[in-house]
Amino acid sequence: MEPFRYHVYACQQEKPGGNPQCCSARGSAAVLDALRKELAAQKLNDTVQVTTCGSLGMCTRGPNMVVYPEGVWYAGVQAADVPELVREHFLNGRPLARLANPDAGALKGEILENRAKALAAMKAAGK
Amino acid sequence: MEPFRYHVYACQQEKPGGNPQCCSARGSAAVLDALRKELAAQKLNDTVQVTTCGSLGMCTRGPNMVVYPEGVWYAGVQAADVPELVREHFLNGRPLARLANPDAGALKGEILENRAKALAAMKAAGK
Repeated sequence: MEPFRYHVYACQQEKPGGNPQCCSARGSAAVLDALRKELAAQKLNDTVQVTTCGSLGMCTRGPNMVVYPEGVWYAGVQAADVPELVREHFLNGRPLARLANPDAGALKGEILENRAKALAAMKAAGK
Repeated sequence: MEPFRYHVYACQQEKPGGNPQCCSARGSAAVLDALRKELAAQKLNDTVQVTTCGSLGMCTRGPNMVVYPEGVWYAGVQAADVPELVREHFLNGRPLARLANPDAGALKGEILENRAKALAAMKAAGK
């Protein structure tokens, strides 16, 4: 029931205090800019919807994004990867395996572990 | 390939100048808070992942959220709706029809129209 053929959620989370373990510190703004430009260049603006998002839970491996309807979780996407990703996933319909997380179970474990760490850090800080 | 059984993206977009036509001005923070509390109360924290997001493109009808893997687009969700939504969609596996957008084509038209308006407003403002 997606209105567009594809929908990309691109994490832009910024952590306080200059924490380097977040998508923002790892270059997500440049990736988002490259993505928007490449989609426009390939005339895919009406085919691919792009939405920014907060943490997806794998902050040490960003910039991260998820593409639907397939539910492909990409990690470590750099601006230089964007033309290939757009061509393969959105033009050829083949998710880019080298940046995708193939193991949903491992991903869930990583997200839950990172969540527990974040909660412990908040508790330690008295928040 | 979602790591969790369900994944909710909840729009928290805030438009500048106190613009009332955005999810933030329409109560999205209270909805997010209610959602997190209800998921915890129902012991669904490991079943439903929640991620905040930017504009989904139907800003006049927020607060909006999308639930995957089904790709159900909810609009006008209020904090008071959250217990029913959590029970129906996440416990009973039945998307809450009264808040869902059933017509993907109409939704795409609305999103494209709002996008064109936003671009025209940015152009008029010389941005």
